[in-house]
Amino acid sequence: MQHEDQHPATPAVADAPLTPLSFLLRSADVWAERTAVVDGARSWTWAEHLERVRRAVGGLHARGVGPGDRVAAALPNVPAMLELHYAVPGAGGVIVPLNTRLAAAEYAYVLEHCGARLLVAWEGLRDALQPALDELGDAAPDVVWVLPDGGDGCEWEALLADATPRDLALPEDERALLSVNYTSGTTGRPKGVMVTHRGSYLHSLGVIAEAGLSVRSAYLWTLPMFHCNGWAYVWAVTATGCKHVCLPRVEGGAIWRGLRDEGITHLCAAPTVIVTIVESPDAAPLETPVSLVVGGAPPAPALIARAEELGIRITHMYGLTETYGPFAVCAWNPDWDDRPEEERSRLRARQGVGTIVSERLRVVDEELHDVPRDGVSLGEVVMRGNNVTIGYYRDPEATEQAFRGGWFHSGDLGVMHPDGYVELRDRLKDVVISGGENIATIEVEQALNAHPAVSEVAVVGAPDERWGEVPVAYVVLRGDGADPEELRAFVRERLAGFKVPKRVEIVDALPKTGTGKIQKFRLRERAAG
Amino acid sequence: MQHEDQHPATPAVADAPLTPLSFLLRSADVWAERTAVVDGARSWTWAEHLERVRRAVGGLHARGVGPGDRVAAALPNVPAMLELHYAVPGAGGVIVPLNTRLAAAEYAYVLEHCGARLLVAWEGLRDALQPALDELGDAAPDVVWVLPDGGDGCEWEALLADATPRDLALPEDERALLSVNYTSGTTGRPKGVMVTHRGSYLHSLGVIAEAGLSVRSAYLWTLPMFHCNGWAYVWAVTATGCKHVCLPRVEGGAIWRGLRDEGITHLCAAPTVIVTIVESPDAAPLETPVSLVVGGAPPAPALIARAEELGIRITHMYGLTETYGPFAVCAWNPDWDDRPEEERSRLRARQGVGTIVSERLRVVDEELHDVPRDGVSLGEVVMRGNNVTIGYYRDPEATEQAFRGGWFHSGDLGVMHPDGYVELRDRLKDVVISGGENIATIEVEQALNAHPAVSEVAVVGAPDERWGEVPVAYVVLRGDGADPEELRAFVRERLAGFKVPKRVEIVDALPKTGTGKIQKFRLRERAAG
Repeated sequence: MQHEDQHPATPAVADAPLTPLSFLLRSADVWAERTAVVDGARSWTWAEHLERVRRAVGGLHARGVGPGDRVAAALPNVPAMLELHYAVPGAGGVIVPLNTRLAAAEYAYVLEHCGARLLVAWEGLRDALQPALDELGDAAPDVVWVLPDGGDGCEWEALLADATPRDLALPEDERALLSVNYTSGTTGRPKGVMVTHRGSYLHSLGVIAEAGLSVRSAYLWTLPMFHCNGWAYVWAVTATGCKHVCLPRVEGGAIWRGLRDEGITHLCAAPTVIVTIVESPDAAPLETPVSLVVGGAPPAPALIARAEELGIRITHMYGLTETYGPFAVCAWNPDWDDRPEEERSRLRARQGVGTIVSERLRVVDEELHDVPRDGVSLGEVVMRGNNVTIGYYRDPEATEQAFRGGWFHSGDLGVMHPDGYVELRDRLKDVVISGGENIATIEVEQALNAHPAVSEVAVVGAPDERWGEVPVAYVVLRGDGADPEELRAFVRERLAGFKVPKRVEIVDALPKTGTGKIQKFRLRERAAG
Repeated sequence: MQHEDQHPATPAVADAPLTPLSFLLRSADVWAERTAVVDGARSWTWAEHLERVRRAVGGLHARGVGPGDRVAAALPNVPAMLELHYAVPGAGGVIVPLNTRLAAAEYAYVLEHCGARLLVAWEGLRDALQPALDELGDAAPDVVWVLPDGGDGCEWEALLADATPRDLALPEDERALLSVNYTSGTTGRPKGVMVTHRGSYLHSLGVIAEAGLSVRSAYLWTLPMFHCNGWAYVWAVTATGCKHVCLPRVEGGAIWRGLRDEGITHLCAAPTVIVTIVESPDAAPLETPVSLVVGGAPPAPALIARAEELGIRITHMYGLTETYGPFAVCAWNPDWDDRPEEERSRLRARQGVGTIVSERLRVVDEELHDVPRDGVSLGEVVMRGNNVTIGYYRDPEATEQAFRGGWFHSGDLGVMHPDGYVELRDRLKDVVISGGENIATIEVEQALNAHPAVSEVAVVGAPDERWGEVPVAYVVLRGDGADPEELRAFVRERLAGFKVPKRVEIVDALPKTGTGKIQKFRLRERAAG
């Protein structure tokens, strides 16, 4: 036993810090003349894209951005946003992507909290941003305004034009901070999720494996890049050298033009965006199927069926900002291909298993013991591993709370099926407790979703004198009529009586966050009112 | 500037050591009932495969294998070899895969050098192994003999049957040693290439991305697992949950049965194995194309064309044992799809660019300066990064020599093309120096390969009174006749006169190592004799 020779120090020749910046350098070399980025009438090759990023590094440097500095970006899916994802860390800084639908007070809070030195912002957001900047006064970051199509007066294009190109600085420490992504904060203050180079690199390789991206793919930016760095697709797409097709606005017509004219093969979306796609007047079956990753909530079976008719193959993934986006995938077992449609829908609605770069998900009780794998016992979903945040920026208390027991607590309630697939039942705070019974609102929502007339649905609890709380449903219809009583009867056939909504309200639309998540707290206010 | 908060210590919740062992644990959970391993009439699901590995861990533990212990494996592509790749590190040990074509003296050297505690060996190799064990005497490792199909008296099956299953121990340090892979040693003593958990994990993710493996794939083990751990496919195939189809002997009939009956989608091979495949009497066009990764040497254009007619799509990769197998890929640019066949062959013959997990390859002069990107200037190919060995086991001198200047020196001579693709010209030691001119023998080989009658070729230098050395060619024909003079004339039309072989000898077969590499030193002896 010469045990001392088992772990020789790793020589520099056998080590390289894991960083997604390396993906860009490779693609600019290997795929130099291939199209990298398309934005309407503009497009760039990989060599040109890298040159723009190198100019951006030089420009940021000239604006004083140095090691560790935070640079906020409030942009839709335009080339500047993609360029910043490489240029900011390439200048040694930390990118802070901001949701484009925040209110002035939220912008002010986040900009101050992250201590941004610079803000690169969409001119169209000036009405929300200027009051925030005014409020911050001397503490406000400098702003570089971006105009559509890089038109006259676009300060980002001016910054690039004036800059001396600089090489990207790769981190010495792969665990260095790459971005801070603020949670949407449906309750309380937004928290800054810290994302590292190592985590982003590994998560990207997982995305490539799960989505099957290759150089022959083409990716349509329906998912906001500000949302968990576009679920790491800002890195994964670049790694494979396929094409980024920007889409500043999520509109059915623009999406279908992209799908047809740009040879799109992959896109990501919340269920609400799938609704936009399949209900667009431009919708028509695609010659070559595309792969769509859906996250946020399981899409309704009827929606999946309509999408598949159009040639859109859906993969269901699950994660949070704290897990770099999709941590789990409803990994489709080929043995399920021939199951009846209803069973396939039920299987696909599950959040699934960790991706190949994720550690195993657990569903645990309050003492962190695994709940039985019975598909019934409710517990909290907890995760750990390389694609879990290293903590909340400047918030050790929230970090400690989220990491209690050595696991990241998702706040999502779910069950573990006998086959090891997780299925969410609800957010912890969204459970309705009626007459002492816990009602997972998602279960009621799924029951309503099975009705062919239902397009979207949300169930919340309303205060009730007798039961404490009762479930109330808000339903968007698909055009064909269905009255509330019919829907209640439909649920009653499928679920226990105490789970049947006391009221079903037909509404035109559900209130949503900028990332398409339903704002249940608004519905709760309405149900209580 | 709050610089101190940029690099918080990584909490345990956000960290997991990178190890390919995690791939098996995931697949056994996610794909539990799917087929994992097929060996003739035997097959196991992923759950069963993990259970066998857990038994193997228990059995190895019972045989005294503990942290850091070396366990050698001299086995063809049978399930035991795959199981050992997980069970040995899962018991905390280090696997030492041995080439099944070594001579007794070579086995004795390697077993002694690595200090193996245990040897798991194929009964069919007893004639070569027993003398080695006898020579080692008391220093010889215990042996567990493996019989075909796990038949009566198979000690490996007995070890599993008697064992108490144990969980796999994951390494605390991702840079811990996972395997020691001895080079084939065409000259000098074999050297033990040290491979880590981190390197294997990252290399595997690169393989998945480059090969496009998914759960719907099926992998045929034509490439020996003892060769760089099967170029990391022992890990990559397991990660995606697709099927390992074992193939103890590389025979045309068995390969075609696998391709047809097992729904094979992917395989790897040296060019010589492709010859076996396309020239098999069982060869017939496949309904669904398969992907074949070729390494070791660029296949002849005529061979590629014949393979493609049969539905075999060829990707050319390049690497060494020191780089976990294929470090580079001739990444196929879709823009080349429509080029004329001859140009496509020329492009595909290049060794290419680093994979998405590799650092950039360099071609350098003796002072480690990059040669011009002109496709002409000759230099040595050097590499570094996570999929480069951490050094030679117990050989600091050889390590220092190979790592001089902070780069791993491949010993391969090549050029850098203007598009950043590397093309090998020769092994450093294989260059023929004739009348003061350097002749890259590979260039002469490629010229001969372009002749339709040529199946395989090797060019070496022979001593010559006037020129110092002259090139001599050894050619295997494809059946149709072609005489030496015709072949020399063919080369003369394509290359400078001093590069034309002075002699062309028609031979029945070329001498090869166990991994299919041509043994040029033997040909040099013959040419000199």
